[in-house]
Amino acid sequence: MTTLSDTALNRILIDGDPGVGLPITDRGLNYGDGLFETLLVRDGRPCQWPRHRRRLELGGCRLGIALPPIELLPDEVGVLIRGISEGVLKILVTRGDGGRGYAPAPGAVARRVLTLHPVPAYPADWYRNGIAIRRCDTPATENSALAGIKHLNRLDSVLARAEWSDPGIAEGLMAGPDGAIIGGTMTNLFLWDDSGLSTPAVDRCGIAGTVRELAIEMARRHGIPCLEGRVSPDDLGRARGLFLTNSVAGVWPVRRLDGRQYDLARLPRGFIEGLQRAAHTPEATWP
Amino acid sequence: MTTLSDTALNRILIDGDPGVGLPITDRGLNYGDGLFETLLVRDGRPCQWPRHRRRLELGGCRLGIALPPIELLPDEVGVLIRGISEGVLKILVTRGDGGRGYAPAPGAVARRVLTLHPVPAYPADWYRNGIAIRRCDTPATENSALAGIKHLNRLDSVLARAEWSDPGIAEGLMAGPDGAIIGGTMTNLFLWDDSGLSTPAVDRCGIAGTVRELAIEMARRHGIPCLEGRVSPDDLGRARGLFLTNSVAGVWPVRRLDGRQYDLARLPRGFIEGLQRAAHTPEATWP
Repeated sequence: MTTLSDTALNRILIDGDPGVGLPITDRGLNYGDGLFETLLVRDGRPCQWPRHRRRLELGGCRLGIALPPIELLPDEVGVLIRGISEGVLKILVTRGDGGRGYAPAPGAVARRVLTLHPVPAYPADWYRNGIAIRRCDTPATENSALAGIKHLNRLDSVLARAEWSDPGIAEGLMAGPDGAIIGGTMTNLFLWDDSGLSTPAVDRCGIAGTVRELAIEMARRHGIPCLEGRVSPDDLGRARGLFLTNSVAGVWPVRRLDGRQYDLARLPRGFIEGLQRAAHTPEATWP
Repeated sequence: MTTLSDTALNRILIDGDPGVGLPITDRGLNYGDGLFETLLVRDGRPCQWPRHRRRLELGGCRLGIALPPIELLPDEVGVLIRGISEGVLKILVTRGDGGRGYAPAPGAVARRVLTLHPVPAYPADWYRNGIAIRRCDTPATENSALAGIKHLNRLDSVLARAEWSDPGIAEGLMAGPDGAIIGGTMTNLFLWDDSGLSTPAVDRCGIAGTVRELAIEMARRHGIPCLEGRVSPDDLGRARGLFLTNSVAGVWPVRRLDGRQYDLARLPRGFIEGLQRAAHTPEATWP
């Protein structure tokens, strides 16, 4: 077993074969017409595979993209991660080739690109003592037909993430056009207060993250109320604590949001630690 | 002089050189992180080049993409369209390569892809007797930071255009999340009534089309009031007439929107014909 170097993009499979490029007729390039998933690989096996697969299938259904047979993916992932203990696996699916014009070609065949990347070296302190985050000015894109799924139209997150370069700021929060908080540029947000957990609904903006889904399920199992709904900027100030979730990062408690400090001792640390463990547990059997 | 066959993608220039593909690390593919322009070429020269160039420059500014020197483009366009009388020129610019993650790489160098396509064979009847259009269910994406510019996040238009396959329907109208009409999947909309022209504002959704801009300027020159603002579905029914604009199509009068018929004789035909001519007049000197 080895670990990927933290510089290079080491391995690529395009429709099952090694390759490095895509034709410029690919609709992923021309319109962002496709989907992606980013999974953590640990001990040579992906984490939360069924959740990523389900979101990919939902995305294909919502966009009307006939996905490649999903049974192919475990074998291809197996080829890609062979001999690798830790890495980040990215699965990108586009609608395939097309001519000029928005109308999808009736016979288009989806294209899949699997790549393996190094695991980002997030400071251990971010997990122990929490992260500093900020509010972003770039609004989250609103479209009820596209919300929730992880499609390739991600300019809102790109512009929001470009708002800061201070490496001490781990993440930025984005609000929708109506001012409601949606989540981070690459994370989902949870608030903790007297009534339990709450998290922004993702039916108009945002992405339904896999660890978000896991957190909601774990809360239910533990009898902790978890509300999916509208989160206002004022709710952030009133919360006892905040944490962010992401499939690669897992769970980050928040110690500071702009000028507001949060006392991490007021967060449900047992729940967060359990969520972190569950999020980063590789599939028991693979493939 | 020759005309492009109406089947193939005939000519490609990537960063000035012939090529067919892009690396999968291109951010245009991964996030729709880029811009494009689609120009009509007539008599071997592009139409409305200054308007397309300005929109591209505005898009680069809004997205924080350092465009390739814009002075390069006329020469490259010249190479691409050499010996071609008519065609559609597509200029696509991405932020260039990047690793995994939304943050743009500080040293990223924009990539440009120029392609030449056949001119769509729109029926002459569409110009003379108008088109039939429909309302789409897919909402237009709302994001004030992205509205107006022609970026690569176009899934809303893709999904809306996929709602119909009847070749007798030329275009579909989309509304924003609040129900206001934004325009067609690939066109801007104008309404004509007692008070003059009106067209949906493009500050929250939609694209500021080059022929839309031309129409607004021509209206001003002719002393025709032209309001950019909110257009409700009811406004469509109350209008005397509608027309749609697009850089390649020019101007299409509307004869029917779902069940509502419009009498083309009530439209300002002189204005529309002048707009069509101006939109499709190639640059006098090129390059």
